Amino acid sequence: MNTAPKVPIPTLERLATYLRYLIDLEASNIETISSTEVEKQTGINAAQFRKDLSYFGEFGKPGVGYNVVELQARIARILRIDREQPVIVLGCGNLGSALIGYPGLGEQHFNIVGIFDSNAKKIGQKIFNREVHDIQYLKDLNRSLQARIAIIAVPATAAQAVADSAVAAGVRALLNFAPIILKVSDSVVVRNVSFLQELAVLSFQQAVDQKR
Amino acid sequence: MNTAPKVPIPTLERLATYLRYLIDLEASNIETISSTEVEKQTGINAAQFRKDLSYFGEFGKPGVGYNVVELQARIARILRIDREQPVIVLGCGNLGSALIGYPGLGEQHFNIVGIFDSNAKKIGQKIFNREVHDIQYLKDLNRSLQARIAIIAVPATAAQAVADSAVAAGVRALLNFAPIILKVSDSVVVRNVSFLQELAVLSFQQAVDQKR
Repeated sequence: MNTAPKVPIPTLERLATYLRYLIDLEASNIETISSTEVEKQTGINAAQFRKDLSYFGEFGKPGVGYNVVELQARIARILRIDREQPVIVLGCGNLGSALIGYPGLGEQHFNIVGIFDSNAKKIGQKIFNREVHDIQYLKDLNRSLQARIAIIAVPATAAQAVADSAVAAGVRALLNFAPIILKVSDSVVVRNVSFLQELAVLSFQQAVDQKR
Repeated sequence: MNTAPKVPIPTLERLATYLRYLIDLEASNIETISSTEVEKQTGINAAQFRKDLSYFGEFGKPGVGYNVVELQARIARILRIDREQPVIVLGCGNLGSALIGYPGLGEQHFNIVGIFDSNAKKIGQKIFNREVHDIQYLKDLNRSLQARIAIIAVPATAAQAVADSAVAAGVRALLNFAPIILKVSDSVVVRNVSFLQELAVLSFQQAVDQKR
């Protein structure tokens, strides 16, 4: 998997958490925050917060703190979600549908521009007011959609073929929900969300905690 | 958030990845693997693989490799998924339904023993042959269900209240899909799955890769 030069992936993940929190703060009309407050609310250590920001220059004023609107705009710019980001969803089962209707995508400028499936019963139907396209036209349609990010929400058996089609259609980043390890070229980034992995980690943790 | 003593969380996450891979290997009747082969197939460095296992004792034979069935059984035991693990799902929208029908849960001994919602239209209905219960009876029902792991698949506005109910009902581990930071006592472990966070990281990575 490719990683961005110098910036550690956990830093990027935390930036997204700060952004989520800052959006909520702005909605509550809070103008300034301290790193201590960030720690209290997000559970992320204040020193870690300052270190994460330090990769991207100077932030905040000593003794004053961070301006909520300004910090939010800068983090959004760092993550390239200050502009609209076209995304396609591949697979329109329960999971794909949940993602298509997921609240907050628009708020962070992710725009689902196309949804695709291979099931003849689904093609031509509408999900959240968007038409389901035949996945065999992915390459053709993505010439105009121009999505570089695709969400893979198909069964494990279909996931590699779907990933290959997406890459052939110009996609450069895959969010993969299928429980398989995708093989892609080095120019493509993949993030995997595995429900089983998450549950397995919780299973270990709750068992260990039990003994305390 | 609590963490298990000594074992780093990324190690636990990778153990779950190895387990997934070993299950597939066993299905293909492969008896032995080397750490080099693990690296080739999972993308996880061979030295990292050996280090991850080293937290839990001796594994594999020099020059021979790892017995697939044995390694699988030991990892499952480490993660406490060698025995059945009861899990409840809170929220039966598209996402909850996708999780309830998620293939592979049973294979790793996660048993969804109860599903709950607050929507009167859903209560009493069946999803994948399981009845949806009224979430107000969560505490009562979990006396017999005995689930210690709950999946939170409700909207952000309801998530904290649902988490509180789950903890009051004896749950000690939460897999949270709502885009909020849950406040729970130290005896409860939480893992968050944030689609927005995943997309934000991909957004950054694909933009940076573009410039290479």
